[in-house]
Amino acid sequence: MEQDQLVVGRRAQGVREGIVDVDVHPTPRSVDEIKERLEMPWRDRYQGERRAFYNNPVHGSRLDSVPPGGGPKGSDPAFARQQLIDEYGVAYAILISRTFCNIHPDPDYAAAVASAFNRWLVEEWLEGSNEDGAFKGSITIAQQDPALAVEEIERWAGHPQIVQVTMDSGARMPFGQRYYYPIYEACERHGLPISIHPGTEGMGINHQPTPGYPTRYIDWHCSMSLAFQAHLVSILTEGVFERFPGLRLVMVEGGVAWLVPLLWRLDSYWKALRSDTPWVRRPPSEYVSDHVRLGTQPLERPDHDEHLRQLLEMMDAERVLMFSSDYPHWDFDSPARAFPRLRDDLRKAIFSGNARALYGLG
Amino acid sequence: MEQDQLVVGRRAQGVREGIVDVDVHPTPRSVDEIKERLEMPWRDRYQGERRAFYNNPVHGSRLDSVPPGGGPKGSDPAFARQQLIDEYGVAYAILISRTFCNIHPDPDYAAAVASAFNRWLVEEWLEGSNEDGAFKGSITIAQQDPALAVEEIERWAGHPQIVQVTMDSGARMPFGQRYYYPIYEACERHGLPISIHPGTEGMGINHQPTPGYPTRYIDWHCSMSLAFQAHLVSILTEGVFERFPGLRLVMVEGGVAWLVPLLWRLDSYWKALRSDTPWVRRPPSEYVSDHVRLGTQPLERPDHDEHLRQLLEMMDAERVLMFSSDYPHWDFDSPARAFPRLRDDLRKAIFSGNARALYGLG
Repeated sequence: MEQDQLVVGRRAQGVREGIVDVDVHPTPRSVDEIKERLEMPWRDRYQGERRAFYNNPVHGSRLDSVPPGGGPKGSDPAFARQQLIDEYGVAYAILISRTFCNIHPDPDYAAAVASAFNRWLVEEWLEGSNEDGAFKGSITIAQQDPALAVEEIERWAGHPQIVQVTMDSGARMPFGQRYYYPIYEACERHGLPISIHPGTEGMGINHQPTPGYPTRYIDWHCSMSLAFQAHLVSILTEGVFERFPGLRLVMVEGGVAWLVPLLWRLDSYWKALRSDTPWVRRPPSEYVSDHVRLGTQPLERPDHDEHLRQLLEMMDAERVLMFSSDYPHWDFDSPARAFPRLRDDLRKAIFSGNARALYGLG
Repeated sequence: MEQDQLVVGRRAQGVREGIVDVDVHPTPRSVDEIKERLEMPWRDRYQGERRAFYNNPVHGSRLDSVPPGGGPKGSDPAFARQQLIDEYGVAYAILISRTFCNIHPDPDYAAAVASAFNRWLVEEWLEGSNEDGAFKGSITIAQQDPALAVEEIERWAGHPQIVQVTMDSGARMPFGQRYYYPIYEACERHGLPISIHPGTEGMGINHQPTPGYPTRYIDWHCSMSLAFQAHLVSILTEGVFERFPGLRLVMVEGGVAWLVPLLWRLDSYWKALRSDTPWVRRPPSEYVSDHVRLGTQPLERPDHDEHLRQLLEMMDAERVLMFSSDYPHWDFDSPARAFPRLRDDLRKAIFSGNARALYGLG
């Protein structure tokens, strides 16, 4: 693939060329877009689930992502196309709705909200003005009832623009545990990766994955990558990829550099403590290489680019990383500016090849 | 300092030359050694606080640390001298008692247990057979009542062999929060570093610092370093070192490599979110450089030594790291074998210079 094809998205024989952005957030134009897709009694109860604290002290989304015609930031597919797809030559944007459904104690309500968001995503973003298929969608599931989550996966898995299942890293239980296995079985059966996204840690019914509650947005947000690490340790030590050899996991918005020290630590513990987890047959890092991919945002940028390049080398970034921008959120990583200079093959793998292979995008 | 002086501990003008080991664990010969130092009614209640789960599935301490005369592993000061001090040329071993007092709901009981352990440590390890002062002690405090913790610090701070205060990373609240400030004030006033040691995460009254409870020892133990990271983020974002400019923090037994990606992440968040924490005047990594030291054990050992050396470079190991063995625990790091080849000056800083400077050991 030539460099100019990498940076200019275009349509060719059904396969679009250009970069792939694996973390883009569509937003409803109003609460009503979700309410009208909810049955009663949930329709009357829904007011838009939001967190009451740990809000960004300035603004949670780019100020310039307000659509020209008005409405919430990131709520107009046409404007998102202009600002992301066209601006940066994005061939495919993997859409992940932010529903906050998993903070609610009621499993039926949570499942209804997830389902309404999925219907909205399909109708407003994946069909309609998406003839070129640049927008690909994620099935949101509520974790409160894995059986209902599986029903939701069955409902949408066959849609041609659906490429994965997504759930929040805010949770009551680490993701390696058996509670989640029906979800993983359904993902594996449909060939859909499961993506994990942060943002509901310590909210509602979710455990706070630090030693007690952080005080403010900065420490809460900084600690999101700790939840990712804990979930990954759990998934690897429970042998999830031995039970579900076709399962693939995507972790977005937790940064990437932590992967290196975590796997050093975990591999050495695995060697010393194999009697604790005999079902883990290979060094945990090998499962990561085969089954796990990380979205790059928010990419760590140390003072010395060389330090980041060394970390990327250590984590086998050429295989494991996929570019993500987090459009339209405040800490958006620009495809043009977020990375230091990379080797051409590494850049292509991160910005296009790895995501195309994972999601079957040609 | 010559190389032979580095590896052979010896006495000279009151200053011992040789390496410094900042994490060594003394163990009571029996529960009675603590019971006899407890007042009633605590004496009758004490049975030796222990965790009921997340026990090492094989053994928690080196099998060869059983004293020749019998008794629990690591319970004979003379044998510990032989096996650690003499064997490896350790000039100073910083002793940290493992009391498990902070898992208990009763603050008075917890403080009494901490106090009994401190009396025991002073009488059995720091006085008696410690004429050369090779053993230095840490004041254990129970976190349940900071006022009682301060009393305990006052009780022992003047002892010539006491060099720091220690508390567990298992906690109900992140360590940057105001609850702990009386403790930090006392540490600062007495010029004693505060050390943080893992092992009671998720036990008794302590929060589990992952998204729910891990299943087994391996994932629980691997996640200890996540608690360290969360505490450090809290301490840095709350501006603890601006409030207590003389306070120094030591983190032992959480590994070291995580420091690099964590500070990359935190420094960039600090830049973006300064309105959330205006009292943090400098990049968080600068406070680490000035106030925080990490014990090296369990040192990460990736397949390629060069990768570890690169990480050590990135974290300014020459300033930040202090060798620790965790004697006599199962994952003991040998001074002779735990590290890859290092530059001479880096090795001297880690094995001796940094700890001597921090603890005023000459």
